[in-house]
Amino acid sequence: MSVTFDIEIPADVPESAKATYIQNYRMITHDSGRLMLFAGDQKVEHLNDDFFGDGIHSDDADPEHLFKIAANSRIGVFATQLGLIARYGNNYRDVPYLVKLNSKTHLVKTSQKDPVSPQLYSIDQVVSFREQSGLKIAGVGYTIYLGSEYEDIMLAEAAQIIWDAHQNGLIVVLWIYPRGQAVSDEKDPHLIAGAAGVAATIGSDFVKVNSPKKEGFNPAEMLKEASVAAGKTKVVCAGGSSVSAEGFLKQLYDQIHTGGASGNATGRNIHQKSLEEAVRMCNAISSITIDNADVETAVKIYKGN
Amino acid sequence: MSVTFDIEIPADVPESAKATYIQNYRMITHDSGRLMLFAGDQKVEHLNDDFFGDGIHSDDADPEHLFKIAANSRIGVFATQLGLIARYGNNYRDVPYLVKLNSKTHLVKTSQKDPVSPQLYSIDQVVSFREQSGLKIAGVGYTIYLGSEYEDIMLAEAAQIIWDAHQNGLIVVLWIYPRGQAVSDEKDPHLIAGAAGVAATIGSDFVKVNSPKKEGFNPAEMLKEASVAAGKTKVVCAGGSSVSAEGFLKQLYDQIHTGGASGNATGRNIHQKSLEEAVRMCNAISSITIDNADVETAVKIYKGN
Amino acid sequence: MSVTFDIEIPADVPESAKATYIQNYRMITHDSGRLMLFAGDQKVEHLNDDFFGDGIHSDDADPEHLFKIAANSRIGVFATQLGLIARYGNNYRDVPYLVKLNSKTHLVKTSQKDPVSPQLYSIDQVVSFREQSGLKIAGVGYTIYLGSEYEDIMLAEAAQIIWDAHQNGLIVVLWIYPRGQAVSDEKDPHLIAGAAGVAATIGSDFVKVNSPKKEGFNPAEMLKEASVAAGKTKVVCAGGSSVSAEGFLKQLYDQIHTGGASGNATGRNIHQKSLEEAVRMCNAISSITIDNADVETAVKIYKGN
Amino acid sequence: MSVTFDIEIPADVPESAKATYIQNYRMITHDSGRLMLFAGDQKVEHLNDDFFGDGIHSDDADPEHLFKIAANSRIGVFATQLGLIARYGNNYRDVPYLVKLNSKTHLVKTSQKDPVSPQLYSIDQVVSFREQSGLKIAGVGYTIYLGSEYEDIMLAEAAQIIWDAHQNGLIVVLWIYPRGQAVSDEKDPHLIAGAAGVAATIGSDFVKVNSPKKEGFNPAEMLKEASVAAGKTKVVCAGGSSVSAEGFLKQLYDQIHTGGASGNATGRNIHQKSLEEAVRMCNAISSITIDNADVETAVKIYKGN
Amino acid sequence: MSVTFDIEIPADVPESAKATYIQNYRMITHDSGRLMLFAGDQKVEHLNDDFFGDGIHSDDADPEHLFKIAANSRIGVFATQLGLIARYGNNYRDVPYLVKLNSKTHLVKTSQKDPVSPQLYSIDQVVSFREQSGLKIAGVGYTIYLGSEYEDIMLAEAAQIIWDAHQNGLIVVLWIYPRGQAVSDEKDPHLIAGAAGVAATIGSDFVKVNSPKKEGFNPAEMLKEASVAAGKTKVVCAGGSSVSAEGFLKQLYDQIHTGGASGNATGRNIHQKSLEEAVRMCNAISSITIDNADVETAVKIYKGN
Repeated sequence: MSVTFDIEIPADVPESAKATYIQNYRMITHDSGRLMLFAGDQKVEHLNDDFFGDGIHSDDADPEHLFKIAANSRIGVFATQLGLIARYGNNYRDVPYLVKLNSKTHLVKTSQKDPVSPQLYSIDQVVSFREQSGLKIAGVGYTIYLGSEYEDIMLAEAAQIIWDAHQNGLIVVLWIYPRGQAVSDEKDPHLIAGAAGVAATIGSDFVKVNSPKKEGFNPAEMLKEASVAAGKTKVVCAGGSSVSAEGFLKQLYDQIHTGGASGNATGRNIHQKSLEEAVRMCNAISSITIDNADVETAVKIYKGN
Repeated sequence: MSVTFDIEIPADVPESAKATYIQNYRMITHDSGRLMLFAGDQKVEHLNDDFFGDGIHSDDADPEHLFKIAANSRIGVFATQLGLIARYGNNYRDVPYLVKLNSKTHLVKTSQKDPVSPQLYSIDQVVSFREQSGLKIAGVGYTIYLGSEYEDIMLAEAAQIIWDAHQNGLIVVLWIYPRGQAVSDEKDPHLIAGAAGVAATIGSDFVKVNSPKKEGFNPAEMLKEASVAAGKTKVVCAGGSSVSAEGFLKQLYDQIHTGGASGNATGRNIHQKSLEEAVRMCNAISSITIDNADVETAVKIYKGN
Repeated sequence: MSVTFDIEIPADVPESAKATYIQNYRMITHDSGRLMLFAGDQKVEHLNDDFFGDGIHSDDADPEHLFKIAANSRIGVFATQLGLIARYGNNYRDVPYLVKLNSKTHLVKTSQKDPVSPQLYSIDQVVSFREQSGLKIAGVGYTIYLGSEYEDIMLAEAAQIIWDAHQNGLIVVLWIYPRGQAVSDEKDPHLIAGAAGVAATIGSDFVKVNSPKKEGFNPAEMLKEASVAAGKTKVVCAGGSSVSAEGFLKQLYDQIHTGGASGNATGRNIHQKSLEEAVRMCNAISSITIDNADVETAVKIYKGN
Repeated sequence: MSVTFDIEIPADVPESAKATYIQNYRMITHDSGRLMLFAGDQKVEHLNDDFFGDGIHSDDADPEHLFKIAANSRIGVFATQLGLIARYGNNYRDVPYLVKLNSKTHLVKTSQKDPVSPQLYSIDQVVSFREQSGLKIAGVGYTIYLGSEYEDIMLAEAAQIIWDAHQNGLIVVLWIYPRGQAVSDEKDPHLIAGAAGVAATIGSDFVKVNSPKKEGFNPAEMLKEASVAAGKTKVVCAGGSSVSAEGFLKQLYDQIHTGGASGNATGRNIHQKSLEEAVRMCNAISSITIDNADVETAVKIYKGN
Repeated sequence: MSVTFDIEIPADVPESAKATYIQNYRMITHDSGRLMLFAGDQKVEHLNDDFFGDGIHSDDADPEHLFKIAANSRIGVFATQLGLIARYGNNYRDVPYLVKLNSKTHLVKTSQKDPVSPQLYSIDQVVSFREQSGLKIAGVGYTIYLGSEYEDIMLAEAAQIIWDAHQNGLIVVLWIYPRGQAVSDEKDPHLIAGAAGVAATIGSDFVKVNSPKKEGFNPAEMLKEASVAAGKTKVVCAGGSSVSAEGFLKQLYDQIHTGGASGNATGRNIHQKSLEEAVRMCNAISSITIDNADVETAVKIYKGN
């Protein structure tokens, strides 16, 4: 079972960058059109909470764990900050990287100040880094908090990033979360569909949204509105808080096959496991996302059968 | 019945850009001097509220709907964000586009913070996009919230945009809405006339204002003050909340023939319909705006007779 | 009776710009050293309040009225925003223009937020406009609200504007008004003298201040402190709220001959009249300012005798 | 009696600027290593309060008074804003000038908003001005309000100014005043020593601080801590509020010979006098600062004996 | 006993800068891979509190004291502001310098406003300074206050500094302190580990954190989480408030050998002593950090045996 697709190059990719854009798109989707994004940018977002503590395997304490997982499993792209890629990339040269361009800590809560996440690097610097290092820098990521009082800053930076990225053949993934004192229900399906639509208006290639939640409704069904609203911008979804790996894989399957998602963006559900288990989990996820496997097959992969 | 006019090229259009300016002006006004602007920028402004829900045709859920309407009906120009044009433009190459340069969501209310809408792209980028894509990028749009505490930012950005756009032969449409904690009556005719006058001072080609409202007065009559105050800057008007298509067309006719407007800027009254009905609605509007048709003729077009 | 003077070129006008500076200075002062400034920048400042309503002639509703006045009467310079000049300038090519570089509306009151007026254009753009259009762009204007919490922004922009203007031979007029929550008496003579002194420190050619008011004192006498404090920067004065044209002309005469002013900056007292009356009023004002006429002569001119 | 010294050129003055730096340093210190700075920048800081009113000689009302004093007496350098130098400099070409780069009015009080004083010109502009005008522009000045909530802006601007000034051979004088809602005692000797130390860390040539005050202690003794803390950055001191010229000169002598100061920065104590008396006062001050005279000699000079 | 190590050059150091990077790294670690950083940047941070007063040797009052210590003892690198290096560097040309790029005073408390420390110089300027002066500028430092409402500004500046520094072969040390109204326990080990992880994500070479404190736990044990979380970014630690030199040296030994630290960043514990004692203290510290000495040996060095 496999996924086939044609890449439609958006009109803001100039002639000179089209080959690079296609190459990057093919690489991170394994020619499937679907994205398996391994998210490893939480060392700023959540400080050490995601990497050290109860229920987290001790392998996860060292940031190199993320690179070992990325290098030893079948992923689409590994998303993390440039500094970390610079420090470890030479030892993990085969990994396709996505540079997460902005990050903030969770220390200041929304009740104190609405969220704003600063852009840390320009696309020019990412392109220089790609050229100087020879690493597989396939794309960039950026988070927007819609509904924040600082939404204007982030919308403008995101639009500029997409423009500059496409000028250089880089793929863009936006993380869009409604958040701020003005947002009462961050998981509202209609609001999440709005967020997905915003990604489309500024031309992102992919948009990562949270899984919608509405009392009494099926989350995967609820995701449909977003997938349609995003148009040719593809929706990838977070895993949410599944109790089991099996539940997680089932949820992912439904997001794609019921909700219209085009992949996943998964972090903690992978890297909080031991290296060996994390690798199996990655491969299980990829089987669904990239190879169009069913849940049973994926669970077998996860279980190492 | 037809409209004739001479284009007066403003003095901030340099010699090198005059031919382009004239060409764009002719194209989007169909040589009538009047503008039929199809507004499709609400996916940021109103998130998914305008595209999915009760009373909205299911065709409207997918952003491509907007492009299908624009491509299959007689419009002056289709206004939306650059990212969306980049994603769909190659499949709709005959549509004249106006790049809406700023956008904000409606999540943060004026009671929390006065409105500010960030500029997403520079004119240089729009011009590069025009050249790289070969699309018919005829102009740009920008929204100013007069009376906002952030009015200064938007006035300055708008002035710069007009300067840069005219240097490159692009037509400019400003959306000017009085809004903020200091504004008690956004629809006051005198205030709307003031807004139209501001557009004139910074040299906009067109200004889109809301239809004035004053208890006991005729809205089209009330619009006159604005049309005069705008001088050579032309006023286009939103449709307001008409209950029926016929009512809408009558209102538009009055705005032009009584109120002195030079066209329309219409969004939801078009795209919330099915593709087929939306196309008929566009053509009906255009018959009044561009062809100087009377209401009866326009209604016939809308009804498909 | 005539005024003679020598132009002293300030030391921040480089050799390359001296001839232009002298030419502009001579043009706008009619070789008298005194400035008759016709102010037509209120369409932003006061929206449509100054142009439409009770007691305002209907001629004033259309912005072209301002240009007709400027073209048909004897003025020193016509001050308005660049966009308006761009739209009408080609039809009024003999008018000497002063580009008013910043503007704000009066919607947000000082009790809500201290005033700040954004710079809309750079001097580079004004110079390009001068060259591209061939219009008589003789100078630039800028408003500072001293005592505003945003005074720092405006002081810095003004200093930069003067530097850049002088580098290009343009004359600078500053409007300086003490205003903000920290200012209890905007018309205090001593405070107005301070404002005039600030203009001197950043090297403005002219400074427009309000006429001082102090219970029991002669306003023209009160203006002296400002005229001296401004040093070689020349003071021009607003007319205040005279009930009659005669009273206005008398006041202007006293501002010059008693108060030491070097001209006038007049807006509403001119343009709220019919074209024909406005032209007579301009000529009357100019007779006092430029030709050193007495009040009787000026009144005759105003009355068309 | 004379002062001898060797100039130590700091390492941020490049080879190409060393000769200029030495020449400027020698000029403004009269080869004494001590600075007699005549401060004439108060027309922004204090508006017209320092120039017009009870106890102020009428000569001081006209800004040219400052230039006449500077030209007719023995001073080290005359500090004022660039605009004023531009307006009068050509008539006073022998005066050594220091361009005061930032200024604010005293209208907004600290209780309303912490102080911030905007940079008005770049060093590049000062250097252009020096070259275009041929005037003796020897240095630049800048005020920092330590302890203000805007301290960060001013520290960063000051550091940049020093860097750029030294790259062009200009001498830098910082005015550093602890001020803001966080500062309870602006004259605390330990705090003033801290301010002097800050000047050293960003490499200023001179730092002007207020004379310390502590109940029951000798101000000149109290100044020692600052003079030592400043290291090779030299401290110059304001006069404070002495009742008599004799008292002022005695205080200055003690600041230098007891407190370790390297000169003075004096404004109102000079220019509020008539031209003739102001010149005598300048020369008296210079005799102490530059010629190492004793108080008796200085008093004689002031008295015209 | 000695430390051996291989330098891993991060991938954001381009080919052209690799030799410089290695040379700087070797120089400041004495080929040990461990850093003995002598911190002398407190003249802004703490004004004169750290340099004058009870319990501080009088040698410390003069900023040259810092340079004398650095020149006469065995240190890795001396960190202070550029201005101070410019003023004294020519007399202390053998000292390896690290330019501390941002600084703030302690006057405004967190209860008034969250901390923000402005960047004073660009890397371009540091590189020019290195070239013009010929001084041994080996690296740069920058402080981030995580959890401040201005965290976004500092994260972005730090990321840019690291990028630019590595492009020029300079080593980067970040000082990261959780601080602000949102931070209740600045010394929490888990939070400090998070701070160390942030340094890793933006690619710093070293990160200076405070020694963790948790009632009933060993601080050196508590430091382990941070050392692991930082990955290949090396942790250096402040001394805290030990009462005795012996206690300080024991603590340092434990931070390295138990806590996994790679050196120290020490200021007041050195420079508040007389020159002679400070030199002995430096050498004692260096014996542990650089030479891998035990505590007994270090204490002997400190005691001058």
